[in-house]
Amino acid sequence: MDINDLILVSVDDHVVEPPDMFAGRLPARYADQAPKVITKDDGTDAWVFEGQEATNVGLNAVAGRPPDEYGAEPTRFSEIRPGCFDIHERIRDMNAGGLAASMNFPSYPQFCGQYFARAGDKDLALAVLRAYNDWHLDEWCGTYPGRMIPLALPPIWDPTLMAQEVRRVAAKGCHAVTFSENPEKLGYPSLHSDHWDPFWQACSDQNTVVCLHIGSSSQVVVTSLDAPVDTMITLQPMSIVQAAADLIWSPFLRRFPDLTLALSEGGIGWIPYFLERVDRVYKQHRAWTHQDFGDMLPSELFLQRIVTCFIEDEFGVASREKLNIDMVTWECDYPHSDSSWPLAPESLGRCLGGVPDRDVAKITHENALRLFSFDLFSHLPGEQATVGALRARAGDVDLGYRSSERLRKVGTAPVSVLDLARQLPTSGGS
Amino acid sequence: MDINDLILVSVDDHVVEPPDMFAGRLPARYADQAPKVITKDDGTDAWVFEGQEATNVGLNAVAGRPPDEYGAEPTRFSEIRPGCFDIHERIRDMNAGGLAASMNFPSYPQFCGQYFARAGDKDLALAVLRAYNDWHLDEWCGTYPGRMIPLALPPIWDPTLMAQEVRRVAAKGCHAVTFSENPEKLGYPSLHSDHWDPFWQACSDQNTVVCLHIGSSSQVVVTSLDAPVDTMITLQPMSIVQAAADLIWSPFLRRFPDLTLALSEGGIGWIPYFLERVDRVYKQHRAWTHQDFGDMLPSELFLQRIVTCFIEDEFGVASREKLNIDMVTWECDYPHSDSSWPLAPESLGRCLGGVPDRDVAKITHENALRLFSFDLFSHLPGEQATVGALRARAGDVDLGYRSSERLRKVGTAPVSVLDLARQLPTSGGS
Repeated sequence: MDINDLILVSVDDHVVEPPDMFAGRLPARYADQAPKVITKDDGTDAWVFEGQEATNVGLNAVAGRPPDEYGAEPTRFSEIRPGCFDIHERIRDMNAGGLAASMNFPSYPQFCGQYFARAGDKDLALAVLRAYNDWHLDEWCGTYPGRMIPLALPPIWDPTLMAQEVRRVAAKGCHAVTFSENPEKLGYPSLHSDHWDPFWQACSDQNTVVCLHIGSSSQVVVTSLDAPVDTMITLQPMSIVQAAADLIWSPFLRRFPDLTLALSEGGIGWIPYFLERVDRVYKQHRAWTHQDFGDMLPSELFLQRIVTCFIEDEFGVASREKLNIDMVTWECDYPHSDSSWPLAPESLGRCLGGVPDRDVAKITHENALRLFSFDLFSHLPGEQATVGALRARAGDVDLGYRSSERLRKVGTAPVSVLDLARQLPTSGGS
Repeated sequence: MDINDLILVSVDDHVVEPPDMFAGRLPARYADQAPKVITKDDGTDAWVFEGQEATNVGLNAVAGRPPDEYGAEPTRFSEIRPGCFDIHERIRDMNAGGLAASMNFPSYPQFCGQYFARAGDKDLALAVLRAYNDWHLDEWCGTYPGRMIPLALPPIWDPTLMAQEVRRVAAKGCHAVTFSENPEKLGYPSLHSDHWDPFWQACSDQNTVVCLHIGSSSQVVVTSLDAPVDTMITLQPMSIVQAAADLIWSPFLRRFPDLTLALSEGGIGWIPYFLERVDRVYKQHRAWTHQDFGDMLPSELFLQRIVTCFIEDEFGVASREKLNIDMVTWECDYPHSDSSWPLAPESLGRCLGGVPDRDVAKITHENALRLFSFDLFSHLPGEQATVGALRARAGDVDLGYRSSERLRKVGTAPVSVLDLARQLPTSGGS
């Protein structure tokens, strides 16, 4: 395998939304009330909507920043690499990183639009959310056809509206929607309730994948506030195991047999253990818990219906015979701090040593294109979509670190969760 | 490999303490205040100490009960298999299950003695805790030398007293002590504080392994109350990953280089993924989190110092080259609901197919005996310690299910976490 020959489709990257995203996209009566970017007294930029402030947290847009300047401080657009928010620059960064196509999760609205859902005026919120999705589909994804896989936000406060929005965006070619790994933590009924049935039905009907990103419960696992922050960073991907357990044991996955969900940024190396555990629990406890999977095992349900993905996971790839190779995808995580951009091909290459070409093709792009109903090759023929071909176009992209005096930290003491939390702004919701 | 030739040492089973455990073991002034067993109006038995009630929760002592009668109800001693609390019957059950030796965690005092730690009179609590440990060492472990590996409870409210108790029981041959996977959740300083240094020092000095059992933070991961209870059961072992992350990133493991800890009932199949993740976090984030492991990787620290164990984990055993084979142990979990007793040898045998004899010996008994400084063979020579030899002695042990009309459930609807919680008594602490 030559990494230059890989065709890379990432199912989890992030857009930092540009300030002008709503221009001309809202009905006139709402135009003044759209979320807007303000510059605060300390010079940092923040989105404001119905009085709610949302900052661009540093760690969420560190592509191109020296690693010793990472942190949770609110940032300014001028401190963020333009590829985070400018689609032309993003495509250039994708070329430099060898990425043929990419699916982008939101930033300030949070992973499944919690920011919009907290609005008091729900008609306004719906108009804003639709404008967001239109901007995402028409501008972010539409400017360079074939490069950005569309992903919609749902109006999580109303399952009927969610279903309508899923159908509306599907008609525009979008077959992925974000949702919460645990809606109960957001104040809504849990995944085990039938509250969400209209949403599941619409996604089933439209062949739309429901993407549960790590952190989409607005909660992270924190062992203690004085724990080194590395503890939290370590645990974050694997914490999606809680959602995985919910999906398997909840009746809705069996009730909607055409529904597909994705565990975004969840990693894969822990899954074989987890599935063995699930089947053991089933055999050991079903007599009193009354679970019934008919003639299949719970692990089989997971393998058929749950899309998995990884950034860099050698053990997981080496254990792929315990997974469903048709459901394993890859992600780059640009511009977050766990991303290996611009050396993603090299990072992924380390995981793919010894893997047959057939499996490499599935993991790197075929599964993602099929699952998200995305047509890459009619826009970017295979020979133009490889890492080598894309990088050849990007010789003029500056990949050097851009330092910011303001974000440089003093001291060398280990950083705790509390230290990181203190960098966050005091306002802002969950 | 013939399972009859295996020598099985389990590092995690449980004793249900008998009502007479404190008889003659406390100073006269405390004799009346010792924890005692009462029979409640509903006929169930409970321990009472300083007004705190602790029941024997059904799921914690289900050995020999039909699986459709499992649940969380308080039970009566008469409903519990005598092997749970009678050492003579326990040895017979161990023989029938092919177990040569076993380490037993406590029941009513909770995993690290939280029940005693909640007492108002701390002098009394210390006297009771020492009497508990003496009973455990002298009676539970002493009656059949070579069969029960001693394990002490620490007085977690005072690290200096903990150190004293570790030294006191080590002089009596005990080189294992329980502690909490997350003491902050119990209201004490976290693992990251230097508060525990006297305890770590004593354990280092005495070659005493600190055992962190799943659930020893008095908390379980619950995704939502209406989640099927299978969700909670699935997640429980793997949730020890939070403690594993704490151990790796906290400075104390590096400050006490002779200290060994065990993740009791944690499983092993998730660990290779976890260690790869840990090393990636180190390389990706250390520039700003300021972690420093000198010339080693964090994964190497874990592999050297953390004892792992499993009940049944085929994937984990198959992945053992990613673990430290000298630190992998096995457990039976008698009499809890995840135990495979009395068919533990058959269950383990499924995991050991194709594993070389050298590794089988380490996993099944050599590691446990070395790590816990336990002398099995001078009491039970190898040829008498095998599954086959022990079972040959146990032909008269009744292994049929013993049903209880009272515990039989009505209905077939899936059981939720809330359903289970409703079976628990309303009193009792955390």
